[in-house]
Amino acid sequence: MEDQSIFENLSPLDHRYYLANKELFDSLRRYLSESASVDYCLVAEIALLRAHVRFQLDGDPRLLEQIDSLRRRVSVAEVYEEERKTQHNIRALVRVIQRYVPDEIRPYVHLGATSVDILDTAFAMRIRDAVRKVVLPLLIELEELLIVRAEGECATPQVGRTHGQHAIPITFGFALSEYVSRLGKTIVEIERRSADLRGKLSGAVGAYNATSMLVDDPTELEREYLEALGLKPSEVATQMVEPEYLLRLLTEINTAFGVIANLSDDLRHLQRSEIDEVREYFSSTQVGSSTMPQKRNPWNCEHVKSLWKAFVPRIVTFFMDQISEHQRDLTNSASSRFIAEYLAGFVAAAERMRRIVDGLSVNRDRMLALLREGGGNVLAEPAYVLLALAGEPDAHEKLRRVTLDAEKTGSSFGEALAARKDLWNTIDAELAKRVGFDAERFFSAPENYSGLAQ
Amino acid sequence: MEDQSIFENLSPLDHRYYLANKELFDSLRRYLSESASVDYCLVAEIALLRAHVRFQLDGDPRLLEQIDSLRRRVSVAEVYEEERKTQHNIRALVRVIQRYVPDEIRPYVHLGATSVDILDTAFAMRIRDAVRKVVLPLLIELEELLIVRAEGECATPQVGRTHGQHAIPITFGFALSEYVSRLGKTIVEIERRSADLRGKLSGAVGAYNATSMLVDDPTELEREYLEALGLKPSEVATQMVEPEYLLRLLTEINTAFGVIANLSDDLRHLQRSEIDEVREYFSSTQVGSSTMPQKRNPWNCEHVKSLWKAFVPRIVTFFMDQISEHQRDLTNSASSRFIAEYLAGFVAAAERMRRIVDGLSVNRDRMLALLREGGGNVLAEPAYVLLALAGEPDAHEKLRRVTLDAEKTGSSFGEALAARKDLWNTIDAELAKRVGFDAERFFSAPENYSGLAQ
Amino acid sequence: MEDQSIFENLSPLDHRYYLANKELFDSLRRYLSESASVDYCLVAEIALLRAHVRFQLDGDPRLLEQIDSLRRRVSVAEVYEEERKTQHNIRALVRVIQRYVPDEIRPYVHLGATSVDILDTAFAMRIRDAVRKVVLPLLIELEELLIVRAEGECATPQVGRTHGQHAIPITFGFALSEYVSRLGKTIVEIERRSADLRGKLSGAVGAYNATSMLVDDPTELEREYLEALGLKPSEVATQMVEPEYLLRLLTEINTAFGVIANLSDDLRHLQRSEIDEVREYFSSTQVGSSTMPQKRNPWNCEHVKSLWKAFVPRIVTFFMDQISEHQRDLTNSASSRFIAEYLAGFVAAAERMRRIVDGLSVNRDRMLALLREGGGNVLAEPAYVLLALAGEPDAHEKLRRVTLDAEKTGSSFGEALAARKDLWNTIDAELAKRVGFDAERFFSAPENYSGLAQ
Amino acid sequence: MEDQSIFENLSPLDHRYYLANKELFDSLRRYLSESASVDYCLVAEIALLRAHVRFQLDGDPRLLEQIDSLRRRVSVAEVYEEERKTQHNIRALVRVIQRYVPDEIRPYVHLGATSVDILDTAFAMRIRDAVRKVVLPLLIELEELLIVRAEGECATPQVGRTHGQHAIPITFGFALSEYVSRLGKTIVEIERRSADLRGKLSGAVGAYNATSMLVDDPTELEREYLEALGLKPSEVATQMVEPEYLLRLLTEINTAFGVIANLSDDLRHLQRSEIDEVREYFSSTQVGSSTMPQKRNPWNCEHVKSLWKAFVPRIVTFFMDQISEHQRDLTNSASSRFIAEYLAGFVAAAERMRRIVDGLSVNRDRMLALLREGGGNVLAEPAYVLLALAGEPDAHEKLRRVTLDAEKTGSSFGEALAARKDLWNTIDAELAKRVGFDAERFFSAPENYSGLAQ
Repeated sequence: MEDQSIFENLSPLDHRYYLANKELFDSLRRYLSESASVDYCLVAEIALLRAHVRFQLDGDPRLLEQIDSLRRRVSVAEVYEEERKTQHNIRALVRVIQRYVPDEIRPYVHLGATSVDILDTAFAMRIRDAVRKVVLPLLIELEELLIVRAEGECATPQVGRTHGQHAIPITFGFALSEYVSRLGKTIVEIERRSADLRGKLSGAVGAYNATSMLVDDPTELEREYLEALGLKPSEVATQMVEPEYLLRLLTEINTAFGVIANLSDDLRHLQRSEIDEVREYFSSTQVGSSTMPQKRNPWNCEHVKSLWKAFVPRIVTFFMDQISEHQRDLTNSASSRFIAEYLAGFVAAAERMRRIVDGLSVNRDRMLALLREGGGNVLAEPAYVLLALAGEPDAHEKLRRVTLDAEKTGSSFGEALAARKDLWNTIDAELAKRVGFDAERFFSAPENYSGLAQ
Repeated sequence: MEDQSIFENLSPLDHRYYLANKELFDSLRRYLSESASVDYCLVAEIALLRAHVRFQLDGDPRLLEQIDSLRRRVSVAEVYEEERKTQHNIRALVRVIQRYVPDEIRPYVHLGATSVDILDTAFAMRIRDAVRKVVLPLLIELEELLIVRAEGECATPQVGRTHGQHAIPITFGFALSEYVSRLGKTIVEIERRSADLRGKLSGAVGAYNATSMLVDDPTELEREYLEALGLKPSEVATQMVEPEYLLRLLTEINTAFGVIANLSDDLRHLQRSEIDEVREYFSSTQVGSSTMPQKRNPWNCEHVKSLWKAFVPRIVTFFMDQISEHQRDLTNSASSRFIAEYLAGFVAAAERMRRIVDGLSVNRDRMLALLREGGGNVLAEPAYVLLALAGEPDAHEKLRRVTLDAEKTGSSFGEALAARKDLWNTIDAELAKRVGFDAERFFSAPENYSGLAQ
Repeated sequence: MEDQSIFENLSPLDHRYYLANKELFDSLRRYLSESASVDYCLVAEIALLRAHVRFQLDGDPRLLEQIDSLRRRVSVAEVYEEERKTQHNIRALVRVIQRYVPDEIRPYVHLGATSVDILDTAFAMRIRDAVRKVVLPLLIELEELLIVRAEGECATPQVGRTHGQHAIPITFGFALSEYVSRLGKTIVEIERRSADLRGKLSGAVGAYNATSMLVDDPTELEREYLEALGLKPSEVATQMVEPEYLLRLLTEINTAFGVIANLSDDLRHLQRSEIDEVREYFSSTQVGSSTMPQKRNPWNCEHVKSLWKAFVPRIVTFFMDQISEHQRDLTNSASSRFIAEYLAGFVAAAERMRRIVDGLSVNRDRMLALLREGGGNVLAEPAYVLLALAGEPDAHEKLRRVTLDAEKTGSSFGEALAARKDLWNTIDAELAKRVGFDAERFFSAPENYSGLAQ
Repeated sequence: MEDQSIFENLSPLDHRYYLANKELFDSLRRYLSESASVDYCLVAEIALLRAHVRFQLDGDPRLLEQIDSLRRRVSVAEVYEEERKTQHNIRALVRVIQRYVPDEIRPYVHLGATSVDILDTAFAMRIRDAVRKVVLPLLIELEELLIVRAEGECATPQVGRTHGQHAIPITFGFALSEYVSRLGKTIVEIERRSADLRGKLSGAVGAYNATSMLVDDPTELEREYLEALGLKPSEVATQMVEPEYLLRLLTEINTAFGVIANLSDDLRHLQRSEIDEVREYFSSTQVGSSTMPQKRNPWNCEHVKSLWKAFVPRIVTFFMDQISEHQRDLTNSASSRFIAEYLAGFVAAAERMRRIVDGLSVNRDRMLALLREGGGNVLAEPAYVLLALAGEPDAHEKLRRVTLDAEKTGSSFGEALAARKDLWNTIDAELAKRVGFDAERFFSAPENYSGLAQ
């Protein structure tokens, strides 16, 4: 029923990006598709029904077995069919479940629960599972690749850049280590937040009104229900779980998105024709431009950045959805369904970045050449530090003028500095004292001035 | 190929909201699905090839015919298959087209064009058609319904509310007329903007480099190509059409989204238990709550508001996509694919609002009762105006104290005012002069103080 | 110098909202004004200079004393004056400092540091201090007030509302407890995040290039510098501290903003004319409307919501500022200056909410009246639960029809249920068993069905 | 009263960016400061009072004169003082005005108006004046500078870049012309939208309730009032003017913001060390880095981009403010006050861009050198076009392989192509036919392949 060509779909996530990430998206679908949504609600209803059987019917094993069989007997299509009549998705599910259970437990189906006790609980499970079974493993794989690359390039000299200008030397591995650190922290936080999503069984307004009529301690029933699903209850609830458990997870994923986008921008610019320090993997049959045969575009990095632009502003929706009037209004219902999209968009970006890092080719010769090309300009800073250490109060200003001289005469900074014998000698002497080799050697191999980069 | 159950899809637009808006979304798919995307690119390539045949091969009718047959011969699946090799969607399309054309025109396929000459042109057509064939007719239908309802309720007294507080009388038709006016203006603007989307054939950097080698006046070739597609060229272009033509259309649609969401909020609050002035249509088999059988939730209005929350912040992405470095970077590629989603989300909201307005039941008795209930409180304003007209310099302050008295004694404003003989008589006299009937009648029927509402 | 009337300012935070929150904003200014910015940078430069004196000059106490005197000798105006020449704020500060120190330490001023070593460190201190000395104490005061009110109203019956519709009974204290819980969690998180902001002294590209020439272990120099300022170093740095330390604090504050805005919406709607369950404090000289003397608008709640609308979308800027190319670009410089505004906006909202909660008058009679008014409609849920417990498989559907009957005949739910003797008796029997009192009593006092609300 | 050092202000717009844009911001303050806000409200109240005198008191010239004198007699401070009592800004203004008018017209002050009739009207005037007297002249000045530069550089060869990769030749003037076109269109739209802001005098709920008691045709009174202020009435109003008149102006300004930010990004990247095609003006005393004396950072371009990040997401607030419940809630009050900030932020960015364009130095030699450096790579496209024109069906694929050969052997594209005699000769012949000069000349001067760029 309702089978269709994926090329008829409207969302890029359900056609183009599905194909580009087939295996990963197939995993995500197990948690985030509509089919999964109904399935998880069924799982929650089963857990509730089991809890009732244990509290009210002494946990009759025959009944428990029949309850467990529900999962393979109830189909999404049947639930959707029923919803056409009721216009209410959970009531539809309940009616379908009731068809498949013995009379004696039929009244217990959904008893004491409001729809959201099922929906919010199922949603918490779905997000938890999608994040812990797909998102986190992917991020960890990316992190590991980054570590390998950072270590492999830890001694590869590269010019450090600030404002897009050559600044002072680093190594390429050092540049990557920034992302190891930043991404690593988001992984830790995502792990923590995804393990702390909550469910509920506190009823229509969160006050356990209905379940108070069923059992002495309704919070015990709630715990029983949630434990079977691997969740803890929301500390306080209205009709809904407190929205912040999920919100904090989503803001952290948005944070990870920003780290990945930052890396994509860095790698993108390093692929500029004039820089050409790294290249994305490019297969021999691949075409860069439909009209310019020579092009090798950094399209994967561009893709990651573009996904970031598409998804990161959606964080505003998540913050809007914090607000629900009184014990709840429904204005977060449609909007929160798009969290499935958001996670898919993030996964598409993270996976693309994983492939980029994996296939990245590093042009070490080019990196060294660019570092040296500036003629020692990148060593104006240590010259200033050395001059200052030697007691020169206007060190910065004097060297700024040397750089202006170099610019005027077209000579390199090293040459212009050498022309100022007084400064040169002072620096030479200070270098001998501090580093143990002379100015000539120092200014001809800027890569040595890389601090702790390695 | 690639047929799947829609319940496996990740985007709510491709499962739940597809089913909820089947007919409309099927229309949208003709313009916005991936299948449509390839098809429109094919249409653009055909137009280009025809233009070449006319400029270079005297418009040989046999060739033109063969070109026209391409549309039914090329399939999306074939293009996607080819893209796996090239990793470039337009080059893949070109190669597939080349399989189906005679040798003599094979070199002319895509000749002189850069991918974006095809993609941006096709995209302009797709958005134009989706907006003009689906969005605008839907909005016009909604507008017409609103007009009918506004006229039908033009004499239905209702209390005007500011800050959620009873203010002074209006009519319900007047309240609706606000939306007739605001929505009407967005329709005019959307019509205008959607008719002014642009295409291009100015090549890889917008300077007509390649086509300058083909023809004397490459802008003439561009016009020929675009005219066949019903478009005008971008005034200036880089690799891309100027982004603002589309951006202005999208911001206007976002504006219409806000108008509709505002109406949904108004109708939502009018359905509060304590107000109960209107009701959404509710079928006899429908269920309001899975646990509270009495509920009649304004879930359609909530749905519209929720879609607004999901889609309106995406405007930030559209503004981000204005920026493309130099003659273009590709960082707007993935993000702009989601415009298809955005339009679908808007259509879902507008259609829902159409149904709400269509099925809205208005409780006129309740409206009148609430207007009168306040005991004339809503007439504090005219009392103040009349008192001022009679020459009382502290009219506002004196009546503010009357309202405080009323509050203290628990009497109505009319009663409290009547107790202040001096004020009452002054107002009574002024009323006689201005309106022709006395204070007693005036304060017992606040609905008469409705200005030009009707 | 540069004294001006605040009424000439452009930002509402510097005129209207400054006046409305004078004391609080004066506190904020100690950390967030431009004057404070220069002062904190000076403090950082002093800490650096002291560290140099300890590492290079054996911590000469005479020099340390002279360094400490800098704070009162350097003025903002002087620094600004110097910046006009250099067009560089930190270089300007350095030059001014150099005027006031003895020759022998002049070369050590700023030595080894890049501007951002000072700026990011100073910024971390400023945000830390503003949050811990102003924001957190204010939030804690609000939390304490909420706790007092929640406890005071823990037994005040109120109707629970979902979708703006009467649902089932709660107490007003229970409704408030939701905010105690949600706000409380944000306080814990803000405390944690604000205690974990970081500084740095790793130089122009984060690799300790310059300081490596000064000392053997430059990370030790960094720790010395930062410890004096109460900060820890960024785990890894480029020119800048990793942006996520601050970002996580800001997203958490945005989360608290949402909690407060949600409360403001709830209280706002409870003040609707038709509901009238609570009122904001309204002084006897206050005017609600310039033309409608009776108005008592919930303008404080509206103000909080409006501030939320003004500030919450700014979170997008914070996420944008995560991205800085290579070892840094400066495109987060201007934007991050507005974080001062953001904190001020949040403080204005939190303070207003504090006053609202403090002055809130609760109309308990009205709450009870509304709860009872629905004629037992709010007890359709327990009726369904009781019927189901009694073994009725179609309990929900049967009671849904009773509510439709009640609607048709204009009778209350209790009456309509009583008319269905079979259902009534079943429920009556089940009630006797479960709760110990009969159906008549149960349906006449819905407030008893409030679960664990109290 | 309330004079303070600007360095104590919290908003960067009121200290740092005020100083950086003193003259422009002083102009803005005439329309957007709090002082201006009160003044414009006074102007509106005067217009209303004059209208009343004309309609009710035969336009007594003595009274009109006294009314006109109000503007210099009422002070902001006095109004603020009064507001402390009333907590209502317009009622405070009314009371102050009443102090200065003769008894006979005192009752007519504000008569028939609701606060928002004054506030919205005054706000429309303020925005209109700020935009038309400051924003538009500034944008026009920028546009004129851009035209001059575009014309001056219309024949300056530069390599066109897509994806940050060398594509095919353009001229720098052509690159600038894109911005002439895009910015020009925003100017036209801003002009149009700013001339169509609206005022109102339709009272508390927009239905002319109060003014209907004063005059026969209250829309005539409204027109009289608004005409004196240079405005037209809102087509329909609630308590407020329809929000879309202003919203459309703001979205267009946001659009202009994007155009300027795009230009800043382009110029920023052209200043990268490896590209170095243009430079911002840099004075001889200016410092680029506090530690790296050689630095010439593109900090002005970075500043523009950063302001874009700070302000562009605020568009979400403007869309949120479209929604106001029923005849209005006040939740757009605080938020819309920040529109003053938004305009100031935009002006700061536009002014900075004006200075950048004005002082931009263009390195024409470098541009030509980079264009030629690629060894004819940028001519792979015309080679493909020529080959295709000569009838080669696989032209694109054959040349893609030539570029791969060139890459492998380290030779230039021209050399690699020359090595393939068959292709070279075909192209040479086609060139002779089409352009009139031979392949050798063509591939050695890529700047000739610039289409219509000039």
